[in-house]
Amino acid sequence: MNILEIIAKKRDGKELSKDEIQYFIDEYIKDNVTDYQAAALVMAIYINGMNEREITDLTLAMAYSGDVLDLSSLGNVVDKHSTGGVGDKITLILMPIIASLGIPSAKMSGRGLGFTGGTIDKLESIPGYNTQINVETFIENVKNVGISIMGQTLNLAPADKKLYALRDTISCTESIPLIASSIMSKKIAAGANKIVLDITCGSGAFMKNKEDAKKLADIMTKIGELSGRKTVCIITDMNQPVGNCVGNTLEVIEAVDILKSKYMPKDIEHIITELGANMLVLANKASNIEDGKSKILENIANGKAYEKLLQLIQSQGGDISYIENTSKFEKAKYIIEIRAKKSGIITSLDAYKVGNLSNYLGAGRLKKTDSINPRVGFVFNKKVGDTVTQGEVLGYVHADEQEKADFILEQDLFEIN
Amino acid sequence: MNILEIIAKKRDGKELSKDEIQYFIDEYIKDNVTDYQAAALVMAIYINGMNEREITDLTLAMAYSGDVLDLSSLGNVVDKHSTGGVGDKITLILMPIIASLGIPSAKMSGRGLGFTGGTIDKLESIPGYNTQINVETFIENVKNVGISIMGQTLNLAPADKKLYALRDTISCTESIPLIASSIMSKKIAAGANKIVLDITCGSGAFMKNKEDAKKLADIMTKIGELSGRKTVCIITDMNQPVGNCVGNTLEVIEAVDILKSKYMPKDIEHIITELGANMLVLANKASNIEDGKSKILENIANGKAYEKLLQLIQSQGGDISYIENTSKFEKAKYIIEIRAKKSGIITSLDAYKVGNLSNYLGAGRLKKTDSINPRVGFVFNKKVGDTVTQGEVLGYVHADEQEKADFILEQDLFEIN
Repeated sequence: MNILEIIAKKRDGKELSKDEIQYFIDEYIKDNVTDYQAAALVMAIYINGMNEREITDLTLAMAYSGDVLDLSSLGNVVDKHSTGGVGDKITLILMPIIASLGIPSAKMSGRGLGFTGGTIDKLESIPGYNTQINVETFIENVKNVGISIMGQTLNLAPADKKLYALRDTISCTESIPLIASSIMSKKIAAGANKIVLDITCGSGAFMKNKEDAKKLADIMTKIGELSGRKTVCIITDMNQPVGNCVGNTLEVIEAVDILKSKYMPKDIEHIITELGANMLVLANKASNIEDGKSKILENIANGKAYEKLLQLIQSQGGDISYIENTSKFEKAKYIIEIRAKKSGIITSLDAYKVGNLSNYLGAGRLKKTDSINPRVGFVFNKKVGDTVTQGEVLGYVHADEQEKADFILEQDLFEIN
Repeated sequence: MNILEIIAKKRDGKELSKDEIQYFIDEYIKDNVTDYQAAALVMAIYINGMNEREITDLTLAMAYSGDVLDLSSLGNVVDKHSTGGVGDKITLILMPIIASLGIPSAKMSGRGLGFTGGTIDKLESIPGYNTQINVETFIENVKNVGISIMGQTLNLAPADKKLYALRDTISCTESIPLIASSIMSKKIAAGANKIVLDITCGSGAFMKNKEDAKKLADIMTKIGELSGRKTVCIITDMNQPVGNCVGNTLEVIEAVDILKSKYMPKDIEHIITELGANMLVLANKASNIEDGKSKILENIANGKAYEKLLQLIQSQGGDISYIENTSKFEKAKYIIEIRAKKSGIITSLDAYKVGNLSNYLGAGRLKKTDSINPRVGFVFNKKVGDTVTQGEVLGYVHADEQEKADFILEQDLFEIN
């Protein structure tokens, strides 16, 4: 077997064997296959595609290319993953709910690249919260309080990391076989044996249209089946930001407020009940989806989910006084009103635009080594479908620099018709 | 303009503009575009193709990526190029003929990679012949004696060299747009304004079948037209070696013997009359192809072409006593008969096999820095279509090592049925 033959096969639209895919991943990790050979193969995969068997083999080869977290001592771990978006604080809300319903919640989470921080960045805005605990403590915490969320300290799926970085430099990110295998390999390496996937779809997501989101969902469900990890996919809207807040601290506060039953945005209710109910059914903790949905809402209403959030934060050294009283969180220097430029109905609040502007404010990072500003972002009072009158406050920019806030106020974030 | 957009366009099967192609070549030469980005783009070109306009733009961008030889002081220079093969000594025979008919023959030629040496390696087997003269001398020689053949001392089409080396490592050699632009860019950089191309086709050539050879011919003719260099393509057979001799000195001797009218293999007669007649017509030195063909043969018969060969060699410091008496050339240690294993008609003398075995004997090189053995190779008495009886001598192996000769005698070089 050699890489030239493997490249030539995929170049000619042929199916690669399990051994050929394994050979590519093994040798690429060892630098015996060069980046330009991998680039040629990735482009051939992009153009000529892969069937479900090939994608599954690629997923498994990448999943086992580094450390694999062994969560077998925790029983049936159900993992949740989102393909990401703007204002996506679902993990912070849903994992405590799920843990409060008796499903072990052990989540190794990433930092964000792009619009805003990831779950780990958001948790780090809570003073004292330690995301870099060791794996033994992580598993102990799950055994003791039912939940732990930590950063990726293990070398999970290094082949995926290497390929992902390459894809980014050769215009090969938006390939369904490559996206599917990338996500699934990380989930499998992170120890999940049942997986619920939130496939976001819209301007603020990887998948811009329903059709592609559906294809990705079908393939991931199939990969899950072929690799022995039962997988359920939910497609959710990402044309406008999720919930009302965008930005790291701001999203933590929104998650806390929801778990405190202070309020519940409609889109977040939809996502957490859909995802949560599926997780409960997979773990045999609900008899059906409807039963699951009511259990989710019940454990918010009775305060058990909020209690679980406090346990999570406390067990990882976080200062829960910030959670009990979120006004303690440090605020951005400038909090400036966004007002309606005319009267009418809001027809668009573009997630992609909001994401890019959050990044501009400092909420996200472009390189892994960039630092993020936890304070900045947006709080929206109004979203798509709301009727507004000229001059009405639609939301707030939270900025540390006046000129950045000014620049944002000049943009037409909201379309009103 | 950026490379990611360019890669994405070709990935999606779109047409690249002249500026985009120029940008890619310029930045690749400067290492601003990486090898893995070039690899991704090359694979996309391989799979999705390029139209004639794109191929012409790629050709011209590569042609002007380094030095361009200015032969304008020589008038209408007609260049000849072959896509290569086994036993291909056509340049050594044809260029002196053409020069003797009044067409300036200024040829910068390459060393061989693969089966046997290139024209330059073959000429260097003549004691004293200097292939590394400077460009001024080269042009002076053409003015004085009508012919000069030198090695590539200029930095001709460096973008092609870089891309060619890359293609070799990513299974993208056999792409018609890439082969066509590679050949044409080198010819244009070497100063040709009229080009006759010998497209070899068969087991010993790049193009294995007639259909692909025809496609390549059509595209190169079109590129020639679009880039203002009138181009004629001839497709010739390369299923068995050209002529009777394979190996560097052995091929020089065969070329000399042909120009001395000692003998004329049918296949060589076909190739030199076809190519030569077209060169004469392009240069307005023959009224039509038939007229051209008879002029070619005439100047062999009357000794004028042989005279021109002697002038070429003498003007570049070669010892013409070796040409006048080719038995002076140093011979290989072992010259061993290849005998017919049975009686019948020869149905195959596989050029690819002969080429590989010549290489094994030491006649070729795999890396640019390998040295070649000028003495070794093959001389065939019989070729495809000849009737032979068991035990008859079909040819000779010229080897410097007994065990290599023995190994070759064990092979079935000839198929007899």
